[in-house]
This record gives sequence, structure tokens and C-alpha cells, in this order.
Amino acid sequence: MKEPLSYKAAGVDIEAADAFVNEVAKLARATHSPSVLPHSAAYASLFRLDLAGMSKPVLAGTCDGVGTKLLVAREAGRYRGLGQDLVAMNVNDLLPVAARPLFFLDYIACGKLDPAALTEVVAGMADACKAVGCSLIGGETAEMPGLYSRGDFDLAGFAVGLADEEKLPRPDSVAAGDWLLALPSSGIHSNGLSLAREALFTRGGMHLGATPSGLTRTLADELLEPTALYVKPALELHRRFGFKTAAHVTGGGLFGRLAKLARPGQRLTLDPSSFGRPAIFDLIAKAGAVSPLEMA
Amino acid sequence: MKEPLSYKAAGVDIEAADAFVNEVAKLARATHSPSVLPHSAAYASLFRLDLAGMSKPVLAGTCDGVGTKLLVAREAGRYRGLGQDLVAMNVNDLLPVAARPLFFLDYIACGKLDPAALTEVVAGMADACKAVGCSLIGGETAEMPGLYSRGDFDLAGFAVGLADEEKLPRPDSVAAGDWLLALPSSGIHSNGLSLAREALFTRGGMHLGATPSGLTRTLADELLEPTALYVKPALELHRRFGFKTAAHVTGGGLFGRLAKLARPGQRLTLDPSSFGRPAIFDLIAKAGAVSPLEMA
Repeated sequence: MKEPLSYKAAGVDIEAADAFVNEVAKLARATHSPSVLPHSAAYASLFRLDLAGMSKPVLAGTCDGVGTKLLVAREAGRYRGLGQDLVAMNVNDLLPVAARPLFFLDYIACGKLDPAALTEVVAGMADACKAVGCSLIGGETAEMPGLYSRGDFDLAGFAVGLADEEKLPRPDSVAAGDWLLALPSSGIHSNGLSLAREALFTRGGMHLGATPSGLTRTLADELLEPTALYVKPALELHRRFGFKTAAHVTGGGLFGRLAKLARPGQRLTLDPSSFGRPAIFDLIAKAGAVSPLEMA
Repeated sequence: MKEPLSYKAAGVDIEAADAFVNEVAKLARATHSPSVLPHSAAYASLFRLDLAGMSKPVLAGTCDGVGTKLLVAREAGRYRGLGQDLVAMNVNDLLPVAARPLFFLDYIACGKLDPAALTEVVAGMADACKAVGCSLIGGETAEMPGLYSRGDFDLAGFAVGLADEEKLPRPDSVAAGDWLLALPSSGIHSNGLSLAREALFTRGGMHLGATPSGLTRTLADELLEPTALYVKPALELHRRFGFKTAAHVTGGGLFGRLAKLARPGQRLTLDPSSFGRPAIFDLIAKAGAVSPLEMA
């Protein structure tokens, strides 16, 4: 006689998932602004629109993941920073249109639910959401043993912001003589980790626990430093002085992103003496013999 | 002398990704309502809010994936339906709060970009978005060779809808004598595929190309039938007659989802003679010796 097949026997533990979801819900609730509207039909999460002072409200939507930074986090067994990375990658993308983050949702996919690790991720998301005044209103946790190996997982995030069409940055107003202002990174953020891992670990033979010459802390500390949250300084800048355009320097890099700020016939001049780069970049360049252009 | 390390050598082909992104952008543009606001700062996607006739506008956000249905699609080499599955799983979740879908974003993660397969997925998303009047405004495609095997990929979607707080369904008004109305599924939708695969393929020894007795088409056709889009009938129903509460029958199943519609002291009565179930369910139950309760 065949043993009856159930969800649990097919690799999906619904009870463990429910317990994790409850823990996550607690962390999420702590981020909720009064705009979050409870509703007993728990399919969609509701958010009241406060449009006071808005002349032409527009929503802004972003979607991003943290890339292979999560492989580094997994190897180091340190997950909390990934939560901030995920939120930062998304809410920072709202800033070039000067949109204020309203809410955030996350997607977590894994082979086998690791509640301790993933609760850390969500706690990091919740802290980051609180820091930027964004409500973590929902998300999805998917356990897919056929697609992800036991300890593997992936993260995706989604942010919605609100802007006023009348006050959107006007990239077409960029003119000769404009200043370029840069906000400092906290490290290598959440891009370029495939290259960094290849350079430091495969080619350089280093390991996460090492503190190579030139650094003051371990490679794990350097590589897992959470992505900076630019929401407060960027929106404050826009409110007080305005800006015409902005770049969030992610995939495509410094030159790829900045080049798009100039209009045809214009060029940007960067004064190399006006800014430095964290020592981790020098280490990657040296270990991987990466050209200056590719580094940028 | 070491060969200089580049992104391409580290497994990330930025040019191929850019070409795919351009193709996807074309498909997405075809879904855009006049509310989509172009902006040259291409970090966030902008959507104008049309609040005509709204007394207290609330946004609704959902996030979901398609689960292991994508493993079936990959085995069959048929990807288009997954796009509708992804949109349906998200926009259907907006309906219990009677929110009209405004826009959708997608996250695609893969080991190695397969432009042909993933363009099919996005074409399916675009068709589904058009069918429900939702704009596909953006998304993220992440190539992560260290996390996903060459042909593996995962999908997550995010939908934002608009509802009027004054017209939200009122689950607490459910009263004795209320009718329960069901909209038919198109098949097994995007849940339970782990169980179905285990029952049909592992235990039953069947294969995707077979047409087992009781079916009129192949298992691939049955299992990959796209998830039904309930937006039009559900919103039309709400507009014309109103409903007090609703369930989107996904994870948790028929009993798990329907049970939550009743308030304490109430119970729902289903008349088994009033609805049938597609033959694929009978086949799964038989092949996996799945109990009626677990099937529900």
C-alpha cells in the first residue's frame, strides 16, 4: 500500500512556514505608519494615501534584489545586513525622481526554510524601513526545494513612493556650470559582488575572516557592510534646494550612471582629488588586476 | 601575467542583459496606460494617480511568485503561460479588497540569461497585464551564476492596486443566509505543483507528454494552463452588486481559504453537487493516494 502523499511529504512544510510568517508579521508591524490600514482579507496590504500639499500626485515603483551579496552573507553566516541592502537598493532608486518611500514588500525564496537566518534578514529590512519612514506591509516566502538547494535563498524587494509631478527633478534643465554633488557610499554596496568574489577569493586566495593589509577589519565586515540609505539626505536636499537630476550608482557603475546625467553636448568633470575610494576597492583592483575603467 | 578580471569573465554579461532589457521594455510599453509617466531618470517608474470619483483612496500591494510551476514549464520548454501565472497570482490577490490593478513589476533571477525563454515569460506577463488593464511599468533581471544553475530561473511579481476605503468589502458584515459564489478555476493554477509533480511523475511514473486516461490533452497542457484572471468579473461584481468578502483560493487550499470567510459561530456550506473539479485533480489524487482533505 502506498503511503498517502501530503504537502509535507512533497517537501513543503506549511506549519513551519506559518510560524515564520507570524514572526515576520510582528517585525513588519513595528514599521507601520498610521497609513497602514488593517483589513481582515489578508491577501493585499492596504495603505491610505495622504495627499496633503500635493498638486499632482504620482506613484513611483521600484524592484531590485541584492545579487550575489547574499552568497557572501551565507558563507559568513551573517544575514541582518542583507535586509538593509534589499531596502536600500529599492528606496534609493526612488530618489532620482524625489519620491518619498511609502511602503515596501519583499519576496523570499528558499530551498528549505531557515527561520533563524531569514528572520535576521527581515529584522534588517524592518530596521531599514523604520530608518527611512517606509512601512513594510507585506511579502511572500516561497519554499521551493526543487529549485533552490537546502541552504540557498534569494531575495527581491519592491518599493512604492509618492512624488509631486510639479516638483519632479527636471533632467532636461541640466545646464553648463551646474554642480555635481556626491553622497559617500558605505562600501561596495550590493553590486559587483560576483567580480569582488572572483578577484578576492578565487584569484587572490583570500578568505572572509582575513584582514588583508590595507584594511582595518575583516573581508566579511567590508563586503557585508550594508548599503547606505540615502533617503533622508536626498529628500532634504530636494526639499530645501531642489536638484535637477540624480543617479543611484549601482549596476553600470560610476561612469555608466553619471554619463546619463549629462545631456547631448554636455560633459561631466570629476575632480579625482575631491573624493576618495574605500580601501576595499584598491584590494579588489589589485587582486583581480581589474582595469581602472572596469573598476569604475 | 594574470588576465585582467572583468564583469564578463566573472560570469555577468552586461551587454546580453542590456539587449534583453530593451526587448522587455518594448513588450512593457505596449501595456502602458496614459497614466504611465515617462521620466528620463530611469530608476523608478512613475504612474499618475487618477482619483476621480474616489472619496478615500487607498493603495493595495501584493507580492507573489509562481512556485514550482516554473520547473514544469522548464521541463516542457513552454514559458509563456508563466507570465500570466505571475500576473494572475498578484492581481487576483487585489480582488478580496476590490482594488483595481494599476501597475505591475517583475523580478526575474537566473543563472545564465536565456533571452528566448525569458522573453516568452515577459510576453505572457504583458498579455495578462493588458487583459486586466494593468501597466507593466518595470522590473529587475538578475543574472546570478553562483546561486542559480545555468538554465534555472525564478520569478516574483508585485502589483499595486487602488481602492476606495468607503467601498472596501466588509468581512465583518457576513451574515447568516449570505450566498457563496464561486468563479471557476482554469485548472490547478500556480499552487500545489510540488505535490502534483511528486504524485504524477515520481509516484505515478507519468511524463509531461502523456495524455493519461481521463484527460483530453497532455499533462503539460493541463499543468501549464495559465492561472485564471479574475479581475474583470470580480470588480464588475463588486461595482454592480457589491460583495462582503472574498477568497483567492491559493496556498492553504479550498477549506483553508474558505474557512476564513466565516466569522466565529458561522459556518459555510458547500453543496458538492453544485460544482465539479477538473479531471487533473482526480488523476493527482489517485496517483499520489492523496486524501480528500489534503486534496482540498
